Amino acid sequence: MHPSLAKLGHVSLVTPDLGRSLRFFRDVVGLEQVAGDGSSVDLRAWGEFEHHSLTLTEGPSSAIDHIAFRAARAEDVGDFAERLAHAGVDVRRVEAGEERGQGEAVRFVLPAGGGHPIEIYFDIDKPELPAERRSRLKNNSARMHATGISPRCIDHVNLWTANPEPVAAFMEEQLGFKTREAIRITGGPLVGTWMSVTSLVHDVAFMADPAGQCGRFHHLAYYLDNFHDVLRAADILREEDIAIDLGPGRHGISQAFFCYVRDPGSGHRLELFSGGYHIYDPDWEPIVWSESELAEGAVWWGPEYAPGDGHAMDQTTPCAAATPAGMGVAT
Amino acid sequence: MHPSLAKLGHVSLVTPDLGRSLRFFRDVVGLEQVAGDGSSVDLRAWGEFEHHSLTLTEGPSSAIDHIAFRAARAEDVGDFAERLAHAGVDVRRVEAGEERGQGEAVRFVLPAGGGHPIEIYFDIDKPELPAERRSRLKNNSARMHATGISPRCIDHVNLWTANPEPVAAFMEEQLGFKTREAIRITGGPLVGTWMSVTSLVHDVAFMADPAGQCGRFHHLAYYLDNFHDVLRAADILREEDIAIDLGPGRHGISQAFFCYVRDPGSGHRLELFSGGYHIYDPDWEPIVWSESELAEGAVWWGPEYAPGDGHAMDQTTPCAAATPAGMGVAT
Amino acid sequence: MHPSLAKLGHVSLVTPDLGRSLRFFRDVVGLEQVAGDGSSVDLRAWGEFEHHSLTLTEGPSSAIDHIAFRAARAEDVGDFAERLAHAGVDVRRVEAGEERGQGEAVRFVLPAGGGHPIEIYFDIDKPELPAERRSRLKNNSARMHATGISPRCIDHVNLWTANPEPVAAFMEEQLGFKTREAIRITGGPLVGTWMSVTSLVHDVAFMADPAGQCGRFHHLAYYLDNFHDVLRAADILREEDIAIDLGPGRHGISQAFFCYVRDPGSGHRLELFSGGYHIYDPDWEPIVWSESELAEGAVWWGPEYAPGDGHAMDQTTPCAAATPAGMGVAT
Amino acid sequence: MHPSLAKLGHVSLVTPDLGRSLRFFRDVVGLEQVAGDGSSVDLRAWGEFEHHSLTLTEGPSSAIDHIAFRAARAEDVGDFAERLAHAGVDVRRVEAGEERGQGEAVRFVLPAGGGHPIEIYFDIDKPELPAERRSRLKNNSARMHATGISPRCIDHVNLWTANPEPVAAFMEEQLGFKTREAIRITGGPLVGTWMSVTSLVHDVAFMADPAGQCGRFHHLAYYLDNFHDVLRAADILREEDIAIDLGPGRHGISQAFFCYVRDPGSGHRLELFSGGYHIYDPDWEPIVWSESELAEGAVWWGPEYAPGDGHAMDQTTPCAAATPAGMGVAT
Repeated sequence: MHPSLAKLGHVSLVTPDLGRSLRFFRDVVGLEQVAGDGSSVDLRAWGEFEHHSLTLTEGPSSAIDHIAFRAARAEDVGDFAERLAHAGVDVRRVEAGEERGQGEAVRFVLPAGGGHPIEIYFDIDKPELPAERRSRLKNNSARMHATGISPRCIDHVNLWTANPEPVAAFMEEQLGFKTREAIRITGGPLVGTWMSVTSLVHDVAFMADPAGQCGRFHHLAYYLDNFHDVLRAADILREEDIAIDLGPGRHGISQAFFCYVRDPGSGHRLELFSGGYHIYDPDWEPIVWSESELAEGAVWWGPEYAPGDGHAMDQTTPCAAATPAGMGVAT
Repeated sequence: MHPSLAKLGHVSLVTPDLGRSLRFFRDVVGLEQVAGDGSSVDLRAWGEFEHHSLTLTEGPSSAIDHIAFRAARAEDVGDFAERLAHAGVDVRRVEAGEERGQGEAVRFVLPAGGGHPIEIYFDIDKPELPAERRSRLKNNSARMHATGISPRCIDHVNLWTANPEPVAAFMEEQLGFKTREAIRITGGPLVGTWMSVTSLVHDVAFMADPAGQCGRFHHLAYYLDNFHDVLRAADILREEDIAIDLGPGRHGISQAFFCYVRDPGSGHRLELFSGGYHIYDPDWEPIVWSESELAEGAVWWGPEYAPGDGHAMDQTTPCAAATPAGMGVAT
Repeated sequence: MHPSLAKLGHVSLVTPDLGRSLRFFRDVVGLEQVAGDGSSVDLRAWGEFEHHSLTLTEGPSSAIDHIAFRAARAEDVGDFAERLAHAGVDVRRVEAGEERGQGEAVRFVLPAGGGHPIEIYFDIDKPELPAERRSRLKNNSARMHATGISPRCIDHVNLWTANPEPVAAFMEEQLGFKTREAIRITGGPLVGTWMSVTSLVHDVAFMADPAGQCGRFHHLAYYLDNFHDVLRAADILREEDIAIDLGPGRHGISQAFFCYVRDPGSGHRLELFSGGYHIYDPDWEPIVWSESELAEGAVWWGPEYAPGDGHAMDQTTPCAAATPAGMGVAT
Repeated sequence: MHPSLAKLGHVSLVTPDLGRSLRFFRDVVGLEQVAGDGSSVDLRAWGEFEHHSLTLTEGPSSAIDHIAFRAARAEDVGDFAERLAHAGVDVRRVEAGEERGQGEAVRFVLPAGGGHPIEIYFDIDKPELPAERRSRLKNNSARMHATGISPRCIDHVNLWTANPEPVAAFMEEQLGFKTREAIRITGGPLVGTWMSVTSLVHDVAFMADPAGQCGRFHHLAYYLDNFHDVLRAADILREEDIAIDLGPGRHGISQAFFCYVRDPGSGHRLELFSGGYHIYDPDWEPIVWSESELAEGAVWWGPEYAPGDGHAMDQTTPCAAATPAGMGVAT
């Protein structure tokens, strides 16, 4: 049986100004601080039970430390390590406890021109908060609407890379992702792909980097239950004098209602996201948008679509290096 | 006792394509058709009891036939006529029945550089709809959410003119409007003003026309009870393949949540509007936004602010002619 | 010229547990504390500029200290005092500063079987909050969505009395209120009336007290911009383990979306209220609901309608005493 | 490899008044009619691509014809038939085309005290609507918000049975459902269980029938993207003079925002449902509510909880007969 992934679990960000980033994610976005110290903190949303969905660590400059997917079974962590090594990927073991609250895991840099640091884990603590921060609902870990924007849970990551096609192929073949929606130039390249191991339209998206770089991070998204929560988020951000990057508006692709903002401490981009749809059909055919359909796919209504800049990561892997020998680019 | 106005009552538009305009306002916006024939129709929203809040009449090109304010008392119609004539304004009597469903009224072109055709009326029918279109709530005239976007009622008009200052002075001195919010260049001219005779921030706004013309109409607004209704409106417009002109977004001035769209039949601009606030204080000091505050005043969050084009009216009064002799431009 | 009222201004409540009441209104409802000390505090909502819309004062038991309406002009305060004295009402002068932030005012007990303590004032401070609590929008006094439920402004009060008819007549004749909606038993008594001096359906409502008492307070209402804010309020209340008294649901009368809750410190009932409609027509005919229409008028949809208990006030005026000699009960 | 299910696909209802049921589901709820004739019609929502999610067939009295789950793979239909037959369940083959738009399938009555008619299918048409009814978004099958309440898709069914425990065991062991939330009397029986093969909290729920019967249907649910859509649905239902069965309100279990209503043609109960949460974790421990937690689990806020009546089905299987020999009741 192939190993398989269950979901996106968490993202670990490096920020040059932990104080400001913490103020943003904890006090403005309203995530709960679960653990950490003066140099690194773990946060999660009120609908999450795992130890963290976001880690902020102080460092010399903004970067993605890693993006973690949870395996479907404990044994899948090792099985993925073997499978990836066999495919020529350089896999590093992470010992239990090396990451707060987490058991053994593996990490690797996304090959095939990706360049993003990925983690696969299964064992993770599910700590309870102190009673006064716990929800009175037993299917939530923390009180709803306690602070700021107050999203329910992590939703997805959006990654940029020079050429999405081989990375998408790697995600399908090695990690079991399914393509749900895509943008493909007629008779030409894949310039965007929305992929999931869950029923979501995407746990991860890959977009063609306009600068032709590899390994850049575009955004991290948290989910809010209602469109109105995103409107309220926009008010909260403007009251904090935090510029809105793009939105609110509605994507055609995924149908999500969105608002993008950058963490003032790190510049990392956050999407506040509601709506979208779920795919339960095993025979789902990817929805493919051509270049003439792209504008509506990107923004069904709302702000003018402007692809904007990706966020540079310190550890950006040169595109050549991101494609290990033997990991051809063909799909 | 001075005559006074109670509210904005209705707007009468000329459209070169009545079929398309009717399809837009009746079938997409969802107003109820109350009366009319093949060349002209009267419409109102489900929360309105007066005969019409919008009249569409076929004509050679798009124009505003008139903008009507309701007087506070029946005798105020005549009193306004006298008062305006005394101020040098050319007033025309409208006989009962000349406008469907309406009693005697008066009309004049807004002087002091305005140029917009204004009507003042009091007597108006309040017809019941057939039972199957009536609301089961006795405080509504028609069924809520029966068709399309389904706003509750007319809200305001926004007019463009070369120099808002003298027009605003006329509105205050002759018609009893109060200035609620305004944009004034520091030490310089008034470039926008939001005025009302009700508790609304504006029944009418005047904005400086970037082209220096007079008598141009910017938009008509209908009110929706909830921000979410505006989001749903955006979906409905896009499903109809009607381009959104601007929005959704939130104004700083008035705090309204907005979405602008143009009637495909006439090009007249419609604002779908929710929120805003009410002013009940008799000593309200106008909120004045300077040029450095203008961007946030125009768009607190949402689309990039772009003043855009006003809508040309056939009967645009040359600015000189719009200022009758003796109606100086000073305030 | 008759003196006139501009609006409901504030409510002053007595609570036996100021700590709990303050925690409820400041930390859960999210009003801003503007002034006060250990025995009494003044609060207001983020959309309000006056010194306070709510005063909480510790006292031996729950009571209404007074309900304050703002006069339309400074001189109207004295003119009302004269007019009311002439009508046989015992009027007490309140010196400037006797109430924090407020100038001279007058108070009286509502006659004609009312029994509720009323204040009329005009002069009131409009203090700015410290910069960090101020809204970045200049048309708000405090930051939107900063804490808890976060309503925009006070909306109305609902009062119980043995026989609403003579009180309503007093409100119309002496204070200039207009009846907007009412419940009248066919061929029989008025059992509820919604009245306003503003365009709101009600600044105040009077309901027949099932226990036949006078002077009881039913609730105070704060306004929220969107129905969804009321749903979020319900979640917040349940997370605080505060029982919801009734709702959420929608009234037929006024069309408001409501949720009722009691202050855990005092038992005073608060309505969280969104929607409703505005009346700008001078010739509005009151919407009258008969006994057969009452159920839908009370609850258009939502919880089962149950009239419930009014809130006893210590200073309840015996009904006989509430009708001064010469203030007949006829309408 | 075990056969597995992908999702709830559709529900087929019998109604004694097809005209009224069709008016309800098509014109008030707003489902699209895809196929059918004078005696039976197929409907689906705008976010669905399969041929139907609801079939209405005229018959002598209200009944459930069947509840259909889609298999994960084409071969799973036959594999389930074998597996079920081996477990002593009487399985009937449904030929391709016997059900409009559908390929081969199997049907059986839920054993272990269930009594509900279940179908498993894989092959189904995905017809396009005529262009004027199609969404301009390629990830929808029909226009959003075209008619009435306008839900996105089917969500779940809720079934009543005398003793949920053995049925839940059958659903887990034979059909691969996972228990997500449950109500269990302390030290006693399971009285409610929410189960899914998807990430939803429930594709199906089983509740203890207060009358001790088997095979009764409680409700079918359709999903709406936002809580506000449910509020709008309540308005639409009341304008149609259709009584609301329960709600709007919020469940603790599943956290869904709900409103229940009965089809006036058949009495079948429909839940209009928004929110809820998704479970992506493979090691999710069912959330178990005890009798003291049941009230909040049933209704977190909203209407008084009243279990109410289930809906009688003509073909109700006597409980004894619903448990085939050898299908013990133990878990």
